[in-house]
Amino acid sequence: MATALVLLADGFEEIEAIAPVDLLRRAGIEVTLASLAEQPHVTGRCGITMHADTALSQVGERLFDLLFLPGGPGVKNLRADPRVDAAVRSHAAAGKWLAAICAAPTVLNAAGLLDGRRYTAHFSVAGELPEILADQRVVTDGNILTSRGAGTALDFGLLLVEKLVSADKAREIARSICA
Amino acid sequence: MATALVLLADGFEEIEAIAPVDLLRRAGIEVTLASLAEQPHVTGRCGITMHADTALSQVGERLFDLLFLPGGPGVKNLRADPRVDAAVRSHAAAGKWLAAICAAPTVLNAAGLLDGRRYTAHFSVAGELPEILADQRVVTDGNILTSRGAGTALDFGLLLVEKLVSADKAREIARSICA
Repeated sequence: MATALVLLADGFEEIEAIAPVDLLRRAGIEVTLASLAEQPHVTGRCGITMHADTALSQVGERLFDLLFLPGGPGVKNLRADPRVDAAVRSHAAAGKWLAAICAAPTVLNAAGLLDGRRYTAHFSVAGELPEILADQRVVTDGNILTSRGAGTALDFGLLLVEKLVSADKAREIARSICA
Repeated sequence: MATALVLLADGFEEIEAIAPVDLLRRAGIEVTLASLAEQPHVTGRCGITMHADTALSQVGERLFDLLFLPGGPGVKNLRADPRVDAAVRSHAAAGKWLAAICAAPTVLNAAGLLDGRRYTAHFSVAGELPEILADQRVVTDGNILTSRGAGTALDFGLLLVEKLVSADKAREIARSICA
């Protein structure tokens, strides 16, 4: 079974985190929600508190098939934590899938992973990421998967299912949720 | 400020609950997540545990501008709780907005609210709700708002914002999330 690690910091965008996790779990992928803090309660930008499955400190240097970074104001917390940068770099070095939505592609950029790549992101980070493909809801370039915001989170979740399982499974789930 | 009550039972569909709550809070609506159980931790169908803001027992007979019922396997728990039926009937009698997605329109139907109405719902409950408008992502009929599933939850959240605030606010939020 494919595995995915989702990093949650306070201020995460709820739809952007939960829609892909929901769809990945429907596809049978083993998803681990890891909080940057030691305690498992993480509160999103809209005030919804979720339970992480574990703390990032417990994950250590384990590699997953997919590392997924949701967006929202919490991205500044992802960027401030050197463990996140280390996880991004180690997953990239191992050829794993890296997925980021909204402002979170800036985390990939800070690790040097977007140089010369096609990507998208939220328009609010266009100053930092001038090559955003603003007409694309999701973009795949090699093992780098990016998307724009809460409004494209369902599309992004289905793309992640397609990459980790198959296009058939993504279509099956799309039908089941009336997408 | 408009108010909304969201009823959460174990087995709720995470995207269907969280997407509308996120968008309603972005619109400035005071949203209360109430758990049917006394303890505030509620676990969705995909294993995501959320904190409710309060327990339904604490809400009592208070009326909100909107009563919203998410779908998922948790709908059977909504239907088994006579307090949910009472809340649906009291909100309907007071002319409040009633919103239900996926299998949750069956709760409105059990309270007699769909007789002669236009509505939609998930195809899995077509046996119980033979008049589902399967080509509609969201349906408005008077104060009854319905939608089809996780894949239409963003559309539904934007419809709720339109009804409780304005079409302009819904368009503004749609733009901000790259919908």
